[in-house]
Parts: sequence; C-alpha cells; structure tokens
Amino acid sequence: MRHIIVNFLLIFLFSSSGFSQHPPSSARIEWKEIAPGVWKGIVGTPDQITPLSIAEIKPRVEALTSLGNLPFPAQLNEGAAEVYDHSTNLRFPLRRGEEIYGLGLQFKSVKQRGTIKQLRVDHYGGADNGRTHAPIPFYVTDNGYGVLINTARYLTVYAGTGVRKDSNDPPPEMNRNTQPDWNPQPYSDAVEIAIPGPGVEVYVFAGKNAMEVVQRYNLYCGGGTLPPKWGLGFTHRTPTLYSDQEVMNEVEQFQTNGYPLNFVGLEPGWQSHAYPNTFVWDSTRFPHPDQFVSELLKRHIRINLWINPYISKYSPIYKEITPYTGSHTVWVGEVPDFFTPQARQLYKQLFTAQHLDIGVSGFKVDEVDGYDSWLWPDVAKFPSGTSAEQMRQVYGLQFQKMTYDWFREKNERTYGLVRASNAGASPLPFVLYNDYYNHRDFITALCNSSFIGVLWTPEARSSKTAEEWLRRMQAVCFSPMAMLNAWADGTKPWSFPEVEKQVKDVMLLRMQILPYLYTTFAQYYLDGKPPIRAMPLVEGFSYTAKAEKTQLHSSDNPYATAVVPEVKDQFMLGDYLLVAPLFAGDTARKVVLPQGRWYDFYTGDYVGDGEIIEVPASLDHIPLFVRDGGIIPMMPPLLYVPENGEKVALTLRHYGEAGSSAYLYDDDGTSFNYENGDYSLVKLTVTNEAGKLKGSYSTVNAGYESGYRYFSWEFMTK
Amino acid sequence: MRHIIVNFLLIFLFSSSGFSQHPPSSARIEWKEIAPGVWKGIVGTPDQITPLSIAEIKPRVEALTSLGNLPFPAQLNEGAAEVYDHSTNLRFPLRRGEEIYGLGLQFKSVKQRGTIKQLRVDHYGGADNGRTHAPIPFYVTDNGYGVLINTARYLTVYAGTGVRKDSNDPPPEMNRNTQPDWNPQPYSDAVEIAIPGPGVEVYVFAGKNAMEVVQRYNLYCGGGTLPPKWGLGFTHRTPTLYSDQEVMNEVEQFQTNGYPLNFVGLEPGWQSHAYPNTFVWDSTRFPHPDQFVSELLKRHIRINLWINPYISKYSPIYKEITPYTGSHTVWVGEVPDFFTPQARQLYKQLFTAQHLDIGVSGFKVDEVDGYDSWLWPDVAKFPSGTSAEQMRQVYGLQFQKMTYDWFREKNERTYGLVRASNAGASPLPFVLYNDYYNHRDFITALCNSSFIGVLWTPEARSSKTAEEWLRRMQAVCFSPMAMLNAWADGTKPWSFPEVEKQVKDVMLLRMQILPYLYTTFAQYYLDGKPPIRAMPLVEGFSYTAKAEKTQLHSSDNPYATAVVPEVKDQFMLGDYLLVAPLFAGDTARKVVLPQGRWYDFYTGDYVGDGEIIEVPASLDHIPLFVRDGGIIPMMPPLLYVPENGEKVALTLRHYGEAGSSAYLYDDDGTSFNYENGDYSLVKLTVTNEAGKLKGSYSTVNAGYESGYRYFSWEFMTK
Repeated sequence: MRHIIVNFLLIFLFSSSGFSQHPPSSARIEWKEIAPGVWKGIVGTPDQITPLSIAEIKPRVEALTSLGNLPFPAQLNEGAAEVYDHSTNLRFPLRRGEEIYGLGLQFKSVKQRGTIKQLRVDHYGGADNGRTHAPIPFYVTDNGYGVLINTARYLTVYAGTGVRKDSNDPPPEMNRNTQPDWNPQPYSDAVEIAIPGPGVEVYVFAGKNAMEVVQRYNLYCGGGTLPPKWGLGFTHRTPTLYSDQEVMNEVEQFQTNGYPLNFVGLEPGWQSHAYPNTFVWDSTRFPHPDQFVSELLKRHIRINLWINPYISKYSPIYKEITPYTGSHTVWVGEVPDFFTPQARQLYKQLFTAQHLDIGVSGFKVDEVDGYDSWLWPDVAKFPSGTSAEQMRQVYGLQFQKMTYDWFREKNERTYGLVRASNAGASPLPFVLYNDYYNHRDFITALCNSSFIGVLWTPEARSSKTAEEWLRRMQAVCFSPMAMLNAWADGTKPWSFPEVEKQVKDVMLLRMQILPYLYTTFAQYYLDGKPPIRAMPLVEGFSYTAKAEKTQLHSSDNPYATAVVPEVKDQFMLGDYLLVAPLFAGDTARKVVLPQGRWYDFYTGDYVGDGEIIEVPASLDHIPLFVRDGGIIPMMPPLLYVPENGEKVALTLRHYGEAGSSAYLYDDDGTSFNYENGDYSLVKLTVTNEAGKLKGSYSTVNAGYESGYRYFSWEFMTK
Repeated sequence: MRHIIVNFLLIFLFSSSGFSQHPPSSARIEWKEIAPGVWKGIVGTPDQITPLSIAEIKPRVEALTSLGNLPFPAQLNEGAAEVYDHSTNLRFPLRRGEEIYGLGLQFKSVKQRGTIKQLRVDHYGGADNGRTHAPIPFYVTDNGYGVLINTARYLTVYAGTGVRKDSNDPPPEMNRNTQPDWNPQPYSDAVEIAIPGPGVEVYVFAGKNAMEVVQRYNLYCGGGTLPPKWGLGFTHRTPTLYSDQEVMNEVEQFQTNGYPLNFVGLEPGWQSHAYPNTFVWDSTRFPHPDQFVSELLKRHIRINLWINPYISKYSPIYKEITPYTGSHTVWVGEVPDFFTPQARQLYKQLFTAQHLDIGVSGFKVDEVDGYDSWLWPDVAKFPSGTSAEQMRQVYGLQFQKMTYDWFREKNERTYGLVRASNAGASPLPFVLYNDYYNHRDFITALCNSSFIGVLWTPEARSSKTAEEWLRRMQAVCFSPMAMLNAWADGTKPWSFPEVEKQVKDVMLLRMQILPYLYTTFAQYYLDGKPPIRAMPLVEGFSYTAKAEKTQLHSSDNPYATAVVPEVKDQFMLGDYLLVAPLFAGDTARKVVLPQGRWYDFYTGDYVGDGEIIEVPASLDHIPLFVRDGGIIPMMPPLLYVPENGEKVALTLRHYGEAGSSAYLYDDDGTSFNYENGDYSLVKLTVTNEAGKLKGSYSTVNAGYESGYRYFSWEFMTK
C-alpha cells in the first residue's frame, strides 16, 4: 500500500522572528486522498521515524473500498499549519457541540474536548496529562472524521482549550465581578497541536459516524488483530519464583477445581537473571523447559513469558549486542537499539532457540513505558542515531512488531501483553496493562481503547475484600484478556471463598461466549470494528448532559470549575452485548441504554428502551444486556478453548422480538491461513412471523471446516 | 557588570545522525570566570531571551569580591555538552553521597537527587514533576558549587537518575530473582539536562559550603530584595466585592481589636471589569480612590491591588494595545507582549495614573503561572516574535521587573505578590503564593525558596478547625509575608474565638521581631544570605539517614521503591532563629538541632545540643529556638511598623552563655537611598567574662539616623 501513497506539495513556512505588529500567518494544509475516505497532508519536513513506519502498516484496501467513498470533511479545510521556533504547529477547527474522543489510552474521561494532553509514552500515574501507555495521537469527533498525527515526538494537543483573538466564533468577554455565570473555561473553537520537530504527516479519516471513522483508521493500519483462539480463554500468571513443578501443580488445581485455564504466564523468575534479563531459563527452577512446555501443551495450556527488553551481562548474546545498545541503561541492563539489524537478529536468534522453538506462545513485554526515572533519559543516544524521544515513543510498538513477525514466520499466532504502544498497532496481537489498579479507571481505559486501535485488560491481581475480587474478576472476563496476575500475591480464582462460586460462574461464562467473542474479534480484522466499544461508538447512543456548576472554594476550587458528566463505566462487547460492570461498594448502578429495546442477558426479560435504567447490584452476575434481535452463539462451559477441528455443540441465543441476522466466524484458531480465506462464516437468521420466532443459518464462506456443530436455537425472551 | 562578561569559545557539536556503532561523543564545556567564584560557559547558540536578561541583573561586584576567590569546582571539569536532535544536552558529574538542592520551588522534598523535573512555569498541582511557580533552573550541591542553566525553555533535569554504560562509577548489576536488596533506582553518577533549543548559557557558582554558593548566586543576580519596612508587618486581603467603606470598616476593626495591620490587599472587585481586567477602579465600589488611599495612608495602611495582566476590551488602553498582544487570549483578555516597548509604555502610563500616583503601594500579580488550560498554548504567537514557551517561562519575571522599575523611578520601594518567577529574581520585591493550600507542603516550599533566590508565603485563607487556623497563622508570621487572604471566605484573624488570643499573640510577636527581620532582609541584600534558610544551608546541620526500604505490594508498590528521609518542615529565619511549625493534629514534633547548644525562644531554657529533640505541641506558641549566643533585637508590639524616624525602644535579647556579636540594620524603610549607603548599621556585642554576660553596641555605618533608641539588654538564659 505504501507505493500508492503519493507525496505531494510540501507546505511549510518558517516564521520570521523579526519584530512586527502581527504574528506570521499560517498556511493551509493540502490534502491528498490515499484510500477511500482517507487523506494525507504533509507539513514541513516530517521525521523518518514515525509510528506508522515502525508498525509497517499494510492498509486493507479492499475492506476500505467496500466501506465506500466519502467527501473530505469540509470543516478541516479551515485547518492551518506552520513550522515555528523548532515546533510544528497545527490547528483544526471545532464546531459548537462537537465532541472529541481518543487521544491515547486515557483513564479518567472519555470526552476529551477541553483537555490538554502531552502525548508521551509513560506509565499512567493518575495525572490526566497525556502520559500514558498508548499515547496515540489520534482523535475522532462525532462530526464524522478523525485526525492522526503520525509522529514519534512528544506532541501536545490542546483539544479545544485555546481561545484566539482572531476566532470566527469567539466567546463573549465576561466580568467575574458582576456575572455569576462567568466561565473559567471560555468556549474554544479549535484543536491546536504543537509537535517539537521540523514537520509532520497528518492523516484524516472520514466516516458516516464515529464508528466508521474508527473502522477506517483500523483498516488503514491493516485491520484489527485476530488473537489465537486460546488467547480468548482464561489466563493466570503464577508467582514469580515458582518452579516448573509448582506451575504444574497450579495448573492441576485449576483443572481439578473446574476453573478454565488456557495459558499460563511465567513472571521474572523463569529466567536465570532478571531486571536485567538473560532471556535464558533458570536451570534450578526450570531444568527441562522443553519438556515442561510440551507437558503443558498436552494439557491444552500455552505458556507466556514475562520479559523486559533490557539485557543482562550474563545473557549469552551480551557481548555481541553491546555495540548495538544505547548510551544509558535500565536497571543496569543495556537497551538494544532495534533500529540496528544486528540487535534485531541477535534477539530473534536467542528468542527463537530459547522460546519459540520449544513451543512458547508469546511474551509479556514489561516496562517499555517508563517510569521516567527507570527509562533512558531524553539525553540518551542510540547507535542508529534515533533520538531518545523517538525511541521512547516507539520502543514498545517496535518490540510488538518484531516479535509478532517471528511468530508470523512460523505461521503461528501469538497473543501477548505489552506496556507501551502507539499508532498503527491495530493488527498487533498485544494487550496493554499497567500497575495503576484503580478499578473504575481501568474500565474507562477499556472504553477508551476502542477509539485508538489498542486492546486493554483490567487485570485482577488481588483485592482487599471478596466483593472487590468478584467485581474485578467479573469485569476482566468481559475484556480482551481475562487475566489473573498473581505474580506477587499468589491469588487464585478461589482465594475468596465467599465468592468462589460466582467467580467460577463468570469464568465459565467467558468460555461459553467464546464463539461470540471470536466472531467479534474477526469483525475487528474484517471490518475494523473494535471488539470493545465505548458508548459513543454505539448506534443509537446519546447522552447529553450540561456541564455542572460547582461551588467556589477559596483553596479547593478557587475558579469554580465546572464538571462534564459522561458515560465512561459501561461499554459494548461486539454488536449485541452491553456490559455494565459493578464496583466494590455498589448497591445499584445506572445504565444508559441506546435507542431501541433492550433485554437482560441472563433472563431475556425486557429492561428498557433508549432510557437510563437503575440496576440493583447482585453478587451473582455482572449486569449484561442484549439489544433487540441480538444473537449470541454460545458453547458449553469448557475448561479450555476447542482445539482445531474439535466438535462443539452451539446454542444460538436470541433476545427480544425482532427478526435479525448475525454472523458466526470460525477458523483453525492458531494460524494465519484465515488471511487467505481459510475461514468459515455462517449467517444466522431469525425471522418473526406473526409473533413466532424461527431461526436458520446458511454458510457464507466455507474456507474452513468448523467444529461448531449441532446448533440449537434458544429464544430467551418469552 | 554585563560589560565584563567576556564571551568566549563557542563549543558545540552537531551530532552526525548517520548510522554508527558508537553514539557521537560529546564535548567539554569551556569555563570563563566572570566574577570571583562565578564562571560562565556557552554551549551551542544560546537564545537571546533568558531569565537573566529579562531580570536585567546587575551583579553586586563588590560584595562578590569580598566573599573572596575560590578555584573552579574540579568535578565540573568532567561536564559535557552537545547539541543533538534540536536539543542541547548537558551532563555534570555527581559524587557518592553528594546531595542536590534547589531546582525550582518544590513542595514535596528538599533533597532533589534522584528526581526528574521538567522545569516549567505552572501552578503547582501536587504532581512532583517540576511544574511550579518558580521553576528556577539552578541547583546547589553540598560539594561546594551550584549550576544555573540560564534558559527560558522547558528544560528537563535528570538530577541523578540516568545510568550510563560508560559511567566511571557504575552500579553493579543485580538479579531481582535472588538478591533481596535489588534496587529499583540504581546509583547514578550525574545530573543530565535536556534543553529544547539550539544552545544555552551555563553559570557555575562556587562556595565553601551550600550557603556561600547561594550567596554568590543571589549577589550575582544583584543581591536579595530589601522590602519596604511596612511590607514586613501584617497584611490582610479583603473579600473581593468589598466597597471602600467596607474596607475602611475592616481596617478599623483590626485597630480597635488590637491586631496589627500594615497593608491591605484589594481583590478583583476593585476594578470595573476583572477576568479580564480594565485596571481601572470600579466607580460604584470605589467612587474616590485617591481619597480612599490617602485616608488609609493616614492610618499607616498601604494598599496592594490584585491584577492579572490580561486586558479587557473595556480598558481605556485596549484599542492602543491590541496590536501588541499575542494570538491567544486568557479568559478572553488579550495578552500584552511586554517585549514590545508600546505595551510596556501603555501599561506604565495607565498604572502610574490609576495607581502609583494616588499612592498605591504595589500589586498582586495573579495567574501568570497557568494552569495550562487557561494560559496561552505553546502554539501561541506574539508580535515580538518571542515563542509561547519562552513567553510563559518569563512572563511573571518580566512583569515583576517592569512594575519594580516604575516604583524605582519614584525612589519608592514596593512589595507585592506574584504567581510566577524565574532565575535572576533575587532583587525583585515579590513574594510567591498559590492555591494549593497543603500546609506541610507550604512549609517545604518555604524551605526550598531559600536555595533559588525567591520568597514564598504560606498564606492563610481559611481553615476547617480552630487548631488548623492557629497553626497556619503561626507559620505565616514567620515567613516573608505575614498574610491573611480572605478574598473568598471573609476570614478575620479572630474568626476562631477558641484561638483568638494565640493568633493575636503571634501576630504581635511578628511585629516585635521586626528589627531582627528587617536586619535579616538587609543581609539578603548585603551578603546574599536568604532570610528563610532551609536546614542544609545552616552551619552545623547534619542529618544522614539511610533510604528506607518499603514493602513490596503488587499494585501499590510493585517495585518496592525506597523512601528518602529528610528534614523539610523546619527552617531558620535569619542567623539565630530556628522555626519548627506545628501542623493541625500534632501532639508533638521532632526538631533536628544543628551542632551547638540551643535555647527556647520564649523561656531562654537550654533544650539540646546538635541532637533531635521532641517538642510537645502547645496551642500557645509556635516552637522557636535560638542558637547559643543568639541576639534578637525586638521592639514593642506595635500595630504598625514605625514610620521613617519614629522613635522606638528596643530590647536586645541574648540567649545562651556564649559571647557573640550581631548587627542591627535600619534605614528610612521606603526609599532606595540605602543603596548609596544611607543606612545605619550597629554592631551588638555580648561578652561573657567569667560567667557574667555584658552587652554593648557600636555604630558601624551611620548613613541614616535610626529611630531605634533606648536599647536594653535582656539575657534570656538564666
């Protein structure tokens, strides 16, 4: 696809720094359509190193074409750009009432208009300033377009905060002395962006609605990732110093106690040295890693290995790689420069021999995000000449792409964890996580992941109470990776006996919905629709509430700053399932239902129609709702995902009264053959004839012989 | 002084961005001595706009000379610099055990080694990331030197965090799996600094100890400020919409109730429009401002006016100034570009006519710091061509200098408030404040102000309890500005009847120590010694405690990060008085006494010798201690500071048993005539002959006929 990207008129203006009465004026950006509904503009002299170039994106042209053509979003013609004082500055207009989403993996809010973000790879530390694990410089608005700033610089985005003298739609001047509705944040009519570099590439994505914009973004990046089927089961990370035998015992306990388990994560102790890393098995705890891995595979359990990329002097490749590492160390480990082919090759050889060749299924790539005091400083240098800033912005992304390619070469899918990402990551099979552990904010991050082509897991580690444990385990089972991370605490799913049954129930429910979940991920690949969907991406959703005035307080709130209400604690999983997690302490919660009739997932009962309902908190269930006509294909509560070709009986649940149709996707679950059409797609149809529901199905694509058999329809709404 | 600054060898190195196995090497900095014990180095092509150029510093060459010569700090010869990827990068070595102080007005810690700060003008918001009101790029170490990076860029300082491969003193590699003392923050041997610009000026200040380094810094900047005498009395800011009559009533209440009051601050309501500002009196609340101000002056009360610099369309100078304002507004007010002579002249004319000419004594300059969402964005442009970043870094500093010059022209001192400052501010008569209102952190900021040539007030606004009110009022009375800021709450000193007496006591004590306080400020001017002194600046102070290991926790503390103990809640006021504030809820507190014998201020009793003592919390007093031989000249508890020439009887308190001598400074209290030697300096001497203490005094400088009379000695220690 890169060959069809036409570079074109380079527009930039070095400002005069001379003294004048007017600031130098800025220039318009020239846009060139590079795919249906996708445009590119170039300002100044863009850097060579960008997230999209690191991700080596391969746009899914066919899928983009089938989304159809749209005109260039008219309001962006008012955009302006210039290069000034070592900074590239951009401005894009906003309209009254227009809302902005995206701008990286944020934890506090879904609505981003009125915020300022310095988008920078870092551990999210609770300060809502733009430093986050996936500071993807992409925003979507509800006016039918999205903007991607394809830069590996620490850019600052003023998402509707600055008020210009020359605004066409200026706010009125107020007198705080006499006007009680004086506003500390006057209306701003533009997004303004400062990129500390000599130029930048900008992409615009159009869409009939926010979802279609996101689809185009994901498809342009290559389509969303389709994880291996086993990746969507349950995963448990064992305590860091466990030996092979202790891990085997843990696996056995899951199986004898009836808890599903599909892959196990080993934490730093699997290595001979860690923090920094040898990447070599520890011979005391894991004397026979090949036997250990194959023994687990026999039990349908894959292995994921924790690493961070920083290399120990005791690693077998240390001497060879040290010329290709940066000037600064991380925990005294050297930092490979993966822009050098030598570093890439050395890691590939070592990881292939030590891990891939014996059946390791993937990695957890830790600490590629920060914190500042542990990562290389901005003054660090790398042998390839890549700046420290750019290296930081893409290090996690680059590591994902590199390891993904190792697995691709074997035609084997992987599914791992990573703590930093960037634009272009949609096709990369990695899930983000962190140490922040605020449950509500974890769910907001889950919502926000859907705008920017990344996956996020609100992993469970441990909890203060049984109730909190249950709430965390319930929510994580409706995320891209259902994970218990017991690295430090040794928690088990059954660690809180009061909620043991409910935890098992939700883990088994995760397994039951696997056919629905896998089909939802296939949509991510085929259509670019993210599996988790924040409510603004959902058809029929609307929630308009006015900013709420707050009380002036001399020290706590000296400007009486208003609060913007928003829906950031519920989301859709796929086309039909609305998930409304409960949090420790909740006795009830509000759920905002999009337009149309909605039904309770567990009972099929009608709950409401485009309204806000109040749901009492029950320990038994996480609140789940299904849209009228929703079809959820479910399998039995197996303890592991079916292997390739394994026969499985499916129940096709239908909710409500509407006739409808849905798809059921399947493939071998582990290879990339689906990219060549080797998959099965079945159309499920329900008709309502004079009040009588009837289900049928027909094959749409038969490139794979699915093990899904014995379909039985279950009409949940009586 | 600027003419003796010799520019010299320009050392910089544009890195090759080509691919090589070794990062481009960096170059040494060439240092040139520009005053005794002060050196300058130039890297790359420094910006024209710097804090020192804005402050137009006039080094006090004589005072620097009398401090004597010192060799260049040897370890800094290992420093290195280079310009690379649009950034100027510096490195200065650190030694084992060396501690770093300064780096801006910080609120959380006094020790800065091991921290990372992006020094950026902003409202301090509780995140310890370098964003603060006075992000002064100056650090002092206890190895006898300080380093100033004279830049108006958003620089990042890695104060001993980065660990280089090529370090001469590298930390050992550890294995977290097997070594329980694995350290998440390995030893770093350098300060590294990234300045986003093409070059920078660096200054080095030597000293026999940290205090002498700070003295050289302050003297090089022109010497510390000497406030008008009335500025050291008590000040009260009245509720924002008070009328002239309400202010007069408030003043009367202070006087009839026996509370001292020396200047009153009017908040936004004095103006016809505010947020943005007309800078013109409101004719309904203040129909006759000239009569109002002169009536107050008759009662010994000065007036300070709140402003922020952003101008309303209703201001009489609006039409003339608008060509000289920036592209973006703040609360819809335009932002004058004071790099244009037109904007300076228009403000000077308006402020002179409206305020200075009728006797207004100074300003409170609000909101020149941030928050980000209110200030101009980094993409803003200004008619002078100054970048938004540089404008932000120096706006508060420039406003201080500009208004200070207006008063200097009238040979009249001012003393005001400001919310942003930068390097070179030592001579500027402004005190920093903010909205953060954490009492403990306010005291840490007070300590930290002493390293960087700024003043800070832990102002009292309101409190939840009487105890908190008392603790805040006690502490603020031992700060550079004893202020009650009732703009929103209408609090009075007597608002909490339970502590009414104790509040009055400490306010009157503030007045009693005025001769000591004024002499202490004179030291700031004459010798560069700051009036408030963090403990590391105090002779004989030592406190070495090992970093404390913390408990690993999977989510709260996943790296078991150690905590560095430090003394950040006590300080010296001048040479003799150790202040140990109490905080709401304290039942006792620890006080770390420097070497030597120490005495209770109130009783004269011996309390300890170079040790840590525990002091019970009493409502009656803020704990104060005096060094052996300490001499504290005190005046009667007047309600206002003496006017020029007014006769005042002094009690000269002596503590302990040691013979000693101290100075007592005086001048007219309002003009700059002291700069020409028109001041009085009296040497106070106590001898101890065979256990018998005897006091005497002698005139050292008689350039002013002081009103201090009738000296009586009081030997406090029996």
